[in-house]
Order: sequence, then structure tokens, then C-alpha cells
Amino acid sequence: MDAMEFFRQSTGKWRSQRTTHHLAFRRSETGESEIYVEALPADDPRIIEICQMHEHDPATSVGGAYVTWQGSMGWDKEDEDHTGSTVFALVPTDDGIGRKGVLLRERGYAEIVPVAGQYEMDDQDCLILITDYDSMSAIERFSFPSNNLRMRTSTVKRFGGFSTATFCTEFRIDDNADAGENAESPQYFSVFG
Amino acid sequence: MDAMEFFRQSTGKWRSQRTTHHLAFRRSETGESEIYVEALPADDPRIIEICQMHEHDPATSVGGAYVTWQGSMGWDKEDEDHTGSTVFALVPTDDGIGRKGVLLRERGYAEIVPVAGQYEMDDQDCLILITDYDSMSAIERFSFPSNNLRMRTSTVKRFGGFSTATFCTEFRIDDNADAGENAESPQYFSVFG
Repeated sequence: MDAMEFFRQSTGKWRSQRTTHHLAFRRSETGESEIYVEALPADDPRIIEICQMHEHDPATSVGGAYVTWQGSMGWDKEDEDHTGSTVFALVPTDDGIGRKGVLLRERGYAEIVPVAGQYEMDDQDCLILITDYDSMSAIERFSFPSNNLRMRTSTVKRFGGFSTATFCTEFRIDDNADAGENAESPQYFSVFG
Repeated sequence: MDAMEFFRQSTGKWRSQRTTHHLAFRRSETGESEIYVEALPADDPRIIEICQMHEHDPATSVGGAYVTWQGSMGWDKEDEDHTGSTVFALVPTDDGIGRKGVLLRERGYAEIVPVAGQYEMDDQDCLILITDYDSMSAIERFSFPSNNLRMRTSTVKRFGGFSTATFCTEFRIDDNADAGENAESPQYFSVFG
């Protein structure tokens, strides 16, 4: 699977269940959001614009995606708002294989300037995304346990120290055939307790 | 890194912050536990005993670990108790490379009979562990963002459908130098909202 296929598989509407572990506080914060993903072909005007913004030849991009989201977290202040949208373009750097490259982005949440990240598909066909901002860096890993269930983990470092670790399970809306129906108190099945 | 090195890196006392996403209910449950891990050499009597219990030649094992844990989850009933211990032995199946093999276990949480799982180190030196029980199967992935921070994700399928997804961040106790000191409300930094 190349990265563009991964984004095409992400197309549609998702309900995201999110938990952030605040590492210094040893506290968990939970939240929910709805995410809409639209894959964009290489010749979409938005892709061309992003490439030009980053001074990349638009012909080197294989396409990208438009993503919007709307969510809330448990510790939100009254005026806090987790609504946003972004457009990004993929530019492979692995001679046309398409599993590794640069992700050019309109803007990050934290900063208004354009942001570029590195992406790579790993040996389990999960997408790894590394983004460095001014004062923080984020590593994310996305996986598809099934076509309608997406998971992601991310760690954020601020000023060199791990700050938060976040875990999301995301269901495709309108098709929850894969949701388990036997939920119960979790068991400590692991060899690590 | 081979799998035994991974378990040696896990040696010591850990504080685990755990979140379980109950997929059918779209609800999150949080909990905490303390975990103690002791690496065991191949000639440890407990390793030899586990191998014999599974009818494996003890000379094929490279060692294993002894793990104890004590924890609680938010939805626990009054008599519920997440305390336990297990011993397991690693038997590589990749001609001495040690990155892939069978994990022989004294017992799982759910069943009293001996359990065997498959382990494998992936291309990011994370440990993947797959365990099939009678009515459920679990896939776990463990990673070390730093020497004192371990993360794991796991999905559990019951009767063929995804039931729970769990995320743990685990700190080595007595050495939290890596804990971030800038915790704040999490930002939606991701391209996926």
C-alpha cells in the first residue's frame, strides 16, 4: 500500500474517541470529535496551491487530502474550540514508490506558517508522520485494524521532553459493522499486566 | 535489538496509565497500575519449567521474564481485582536471530491453561505480540519512545469482532527525567484533526 492509498482508505466521515495522557501530571483527558476526510487528486487546485506555497513543483505531488474536524476535550476552557480544517499534499521522495516523502501542509494548528512533515509507510502498512514545529515535535502512527476502524497513537515533545501521548480509535460513521458487541470490563490479558 | 533485549529494557518497576476504549459503547475507561518486570536467564528453573509444560526443549529458549502487576480500572466492581503475575519464556524461530518466535506462558489472565503467543520485532524495534485464546485474540504493540517511557497499544477481538482498544503509557518509577513539564490542554496538531 502506498501513502496515497492510505489516505484514500481514510476518506469519509469518522467518529474519533480520543484519550490524551498528560505525562507530567499522570492524568488522562478524554474527548470526542468528528472528522471528515476527502482525498484530493494531484491536479486539484488546492494541491497545486500548497505546492507553490512551499516552492515545490506541483508535478512532483501525487495528491493529498482535505480534512475538517470538530471536537471537544474534557479539560476545555469555555472559549476553547477544536474546530478546524487543513489541506495537505504528498510529495514522494522514494523514486515513485510512494511509501515515503514529504507532507506539505497549509498550516498546523499551533502556527499559522506553512508546515512540512515527513511521512513513511512501515512494514505493517501503517502510516508514520513526523512533524517538527518551532517549540514542539510530533510523531503519529496510523493503522487500520479493519476497513472501518482506524487507530492512531501520537507523542508530542515540547522543548525536548515528552509532554503528551494521545490515543484515538476512530469509527467510520454509517458503517459500524466491525464494532464489537461484547464489551465488558477489560481484562488484564497481557503478559505485561 | 532482539526480543530478549527488549524485555531486558523493560526490567524494573513501572507506573502504567491505561485507557480502554470500549468500541461498542463508545466509552472510555481509565485506570492505573504498577508493574514489576524481572528478566530471567535461559537456565532459570522457571523458564525450564514453562518449556517442559509446553513440551518444548528448554535448550531452545533464550530466557524470558517474570511479571507482577497490581492495578484498578474505573468500572471495577467491588470484588474485582487486577492483581496477578506470570512467567513466560521466549523460543526464537528465526534461526538464532532472536527477533521472532513463540512466547510460552504459564497462564493467561482469562484461562488457566498454558498459553502460547507469537512475538516479533518490527522495523521500528517495537515488539508485537499476538495471542489467541479460546474466544478472543489480542494484538499488542510495545514501543520505547525513551528509555524510561514505554507505550503500548492493544486491540482485543471477541468472537471475530473488535471489542476493546487499549492504550498504556508507562513510566519507569524512580526516574522520571523524561516527563514533560509543559503539560497543557492538548492541541489538535494532527493533519487528521
